[in-house]
Amino acid sequence: MRNIVVTLLIAFLPYPAFAQKSTPPSPAQLAQEVREYRMDNEDRIIRELSEFLSIPNIASDTPNIQKNAAHLVEMLEARGIETHLLPISGRGPVVFGKLIAPEAKRTVIFYAHYDGQPVDPSAWTDGKPFEPVLRDAAIEAGGKRMLFPENSAQHRAVYNDNWRIYARSASDDKSPIVALLAAIDALRAKKIPLAVNLKLVLEGEEEAGSPNLQRTLLLHENLLGGDLLITGDGPVHQSGRPLVFFGNRGILGFEITTFGPIRALHSGHYGNWAPNPGFELARLLSSMKSDDGRVLIDGFYDDVVPLGNTEKKALEEMPNNDADLEKELQFAKPEGGGKRLVELLQLPSLNIRGLRSAYVGEQAQNIVPEKAEAALDVRLVKGEDPDKKFEQVLAHIRKQGFYVTSAPPTREERLSNPHVVRVVKDVWNYRASRTSMELSVSKALVQLVQDTTGGSAVVAPTLGGSVPMYIFEDLGLPWIGVPIVNYDNHQHSSDENLRLGHFWRGMEIYGAILADLNW
Amino acid sequence: MRNIVVTLLIAFLPYPAFAQKSTPPSPAQLAQEVREYRMDNEDRIIRELSEFLSIPNIASDTPNIQKNAAHLVEMLEARGIETHLLPISGRGPVVFGKLIAPEAKRTVIFYAHYDGQPVDPSAWTDGKPFEPVLRDAAIEAGGKRMLFPENSAQHRAVYNDNWRIYARSASDDKSPIVALLAAIDALRAKKIPLAVNLKLVLEGEEEAGSPNLQRTLLLHENLLGGDLLITGDGPVHQSGRPLVFFGNRGILGFEITTFGPIRALHSGHYGNWAPNPGFELARLLSSMKSDDGRVLIDGFYDDVVPLGNTEKKALEEMPNNDADLEKELQFAKPEGGGKRLVELLQLPSLNIRGLRSAYVGEQAQNIVPEKAEAALDVRLVKGEDPDKKFEQVLAHIRKQGFYVTSAPPTREERLSNPHVVRVVKDVWNYRASRTSMELSVSKALVQLVQDTTGGSAVVAPTLGGSVPMYIFEDLGLPWIGVPIVNYDNHQHSSDENLRLGHFWRGMEIYGAILADLNW
Repeated sequence: MRNIVVTLLIAFLPYPAFAQKSTPPSPAQLAQEVREYRMDNEDRIIRELSEFLSIPNIASDTPNIQKNAAHLVEMLEARGIETHLLPISGRGPVVFGKLIAPEAKRTVIFYAHYDGQPVDPSAWTDGKPFEPVLRDAAIEAGGKRMLFPENSAQHRAVYNDNWRIYARSASDDKSPIVALLAAIDALRAKKIPLAVNLKLVLEGEEEAGSPNLQRTLLLHENLLGGDLLITGDGPVHQSGRPLVFFGNRGILGFEITTFGPIRALHSGHYGNWAPNPGFELARLLSSMKSDDGRVLIDGFYDDVVPLGNTEKKALEEMPNNDADLEKELQFAKPEGGGKRLVELLQLPSLNIRGLRSAYVGEQAQNIVPEKAEAALDVRLVKGEDPDKKFEQVLAHIRKQGFYVTSAPPTREERLSNPHVVRVVKDVWNYRASRTSMELSVSKALVQLVQDTTGGSAVVAPTLGGSVPMYIFEDLGLPWIGVPIVNYDNHQHSSDENLRLGHFWRGMEIYGAILADLNW
Repeated sequence: MRNIVVTLLIAFLPYPAFAQKSTPPSPAQLAQEVREYRMDNEDRIIRELSEFLSIPNIASDTPNIQKNAAHLVEMLEARGIETHLLPISGRGPVVFGKLIAPEAKRTVIFYAHYDGQPVDPSAWTDGKPFEPVLRDAAIEAGGKRMLFPENSAQHRAVYNDNWRIYARSASDDKSPIVALLAAIDALRAKKIPLAVNLKLVLEGEEEAGSPNLQRTLLLHENLLGGDLLITGDGPVHQSGRPLVFFGNRGILGFEITTFGPIRALHSGHYGNWAPNPGFELARLLSSMKSDDGRVLIDGFYDDVVPLGNTEKKALEEMPNNDADLEKELQFAKPEGGGKRLVELLQLPSLNIRGLRSAYVGEQAQNIVPEKAEAALDVRLVKGEDPDKKFEQVLAHIRKQGFYVTSAPPTREERLSNPHVVRVVKDVWNYRASRTSMELSVSKALVQLVQDTTGGSAVVAPTLGGSVPMYIFEDLGLPWIGVPIVNYDNHQHSSDENLRLGHFWRGMEIYGAILADLNW
């Protein structure tokens, strides 16, 4: 079977690069044009996405992540986008693309990442995170597996909005890339010119913390001239409405290990004499947060930069569907002492992302384990420094009576300290970033997205997730987030999925931005 | 190659079953006779052990555990021991054996188990728990792999005392069975008659909690007439000295699960709003035990039956090598508020044997996990009831504000209770048991073991581990523990091993008991 990219190459190269129409269409008309194109080409678009999702994309899996980059080059070049690989030793390169619109005065840079979170195939319903599966609804709603249908002369719009594609990165973050490219195809097919020059920065190690992005971009700073950066990463609002957001949280990750005896011991012969690392860890972790979720680490909330009035107003206008979410997620009481979810996202958070000590369940052994481990992450907001935050965490741990080391403790350290803990900071820690909502480009983009979507977009001063947008902030680029995927996409977990209705709407929004953004 | 059991059959059947010598030898002489035999037959004895260890023996692995039983039948019948399998549906049978000594007035029943703890091969240095490996020292001491040597006419005692055999059940609990059979072989070879009738009760699901042992023995109570039960399970004292013990602790195991959102959520978008099950679990666990290891569950120590004076005296006489052990195990401060290890073993204990929530390390994902799990075990002492203890645990958990269920919580339960916990009791829970040290058989056995070992034996009122000796107590049998294996055997963990010097000494002790125990 012919590769979809080659098909695209043949399909689009004959078209003039920037065909012109006389009257520029309105945003709503643009959306309609993109929709018309999509309805005739759904199978082709889904096939391109599906082929892309079939390439395993864990950042540390070098051969495969480089295959993703090579595939992206084909996808971009098929659209006549000038493409350069900005190499990173042993990792996936930054894929850079450039598409010049002769009449354009502004340049928009589109950021997304083509790597995905690590996978545990056994936790996936279909067992194979890199073999995309189509279902007629979400798995939670009883969605059944289906064959991928094909368009025909008689059948357009063969994919239902509620259908979902299951695969790692179906949402985070390959689909925004495919949606953008499909939007370009749609504009070309409808002979609508681009209003802005487009550059693409597609990264291959975002889920590994983007450790090389800043360095790589600085090496190629000459390529990055532009007026606005748009990121396609992240989900839309939980209400299902489109989203425009102006900030991201930073992240600090670390692992804590407590220690028992140097080797696991029989719990009958040594339990309640040999120190238990699980109880040590439980005591330490429970000291960090109050019952209602307030972090008890000294100074934890000190450096938060308060929101401005525009941002506060936007926050107030955001829909409040917390109660519905709680019901859907099946818990009786959120943390945060009564604050709304969107308010809590303006504060730093402390989360246990994993625990491990010996075994539970069928594999449980009657032992005093030799160690217990916890993986944690802190989300940082504007004004907070990851290194300073980590020092606050260490100071708190020391205050609980622990001797702290970053290396495996030596015999000497173990024998001279009753409570020893190893704390190792992740390599990928970075600060938050936020673009002012008062900029003219901010206002223009919000207006355009509202016009494209019938005024349904939610506008958020800051999202909860972390993307290294500080890198672009440091390059002097204002940035704004325009995500497109469904919020219930199981991002970062098993059974990641994309709802097709969201994907189609994303194409329309991206098409309108490319054809009509000006400020 | 000929199976070692067949070799034994050929070697021993021609001998008269109970040859007689004129003057009964002293215990020290008996030990010497067994030693002489052993030095000439080390390769044969090790080969029998090694073949036995090569049969995987997890209680739930029905085909293999039944292979172990069939192999045991061959081993027993090769010695002319009348053997019966007492079947347990879907599990390994109880292997019952009987060897009558014409002159004997007393009957001693020997208990051991042929099943082993579950294994995680990846945690074993040699990766294969059921392929016995010989090393010239413990792995921790840099022990290197060796070939199994063979005896020859010129070379007796080819195995060094410090060498170790690594395999699941090398210590717990296959080697005591092989030591007993080799002791019988030695006495026969030296024409020394048995002083007692011998019965064997060899169980195949002790590590799974002996759920069927009592029922099975009651069905065959007619087989079990006897005057004393000796159990070979457990390690000797940490000082390396032989051990005789009169009690075991009971056990209560349970698993605790706390809950977050119904599905794992992105920790950036939902962290510090969606409840974190890791923090819930940490708070709950840390409420159960004080910093110095005192269990804080109401009534936890109420039902402990105090030791009698003989037991207290024995406890005082037990060697105190706690400080050395702490150094070896590399921790600065034991739990127990200054009490000695042997004192703490007279109290109930609470131990976290495992923790699990999502992932740590390389596999960590930035999520709020949907659940966190802890596996715990309680060791019970004389006077305590497992069911009552479990109720105390549940009452404590409820007191911390948790809604407790034993099933996966329903949507309704989750939505109407801010803190939900699932607590599931293991199927294998039983009470402690203790034989009086004042009985004449108790005194006779201690004296015999002391005479055999130059007075070096440690005498303990209770061991820390759990073996279902209450079953024999209920059958009206006094029971005493005479373990033989090294204490640093990694019992229940990876790299389980047997030090050969201990094994040889065990043969001598068992030989002396068989040839000289009377009261």
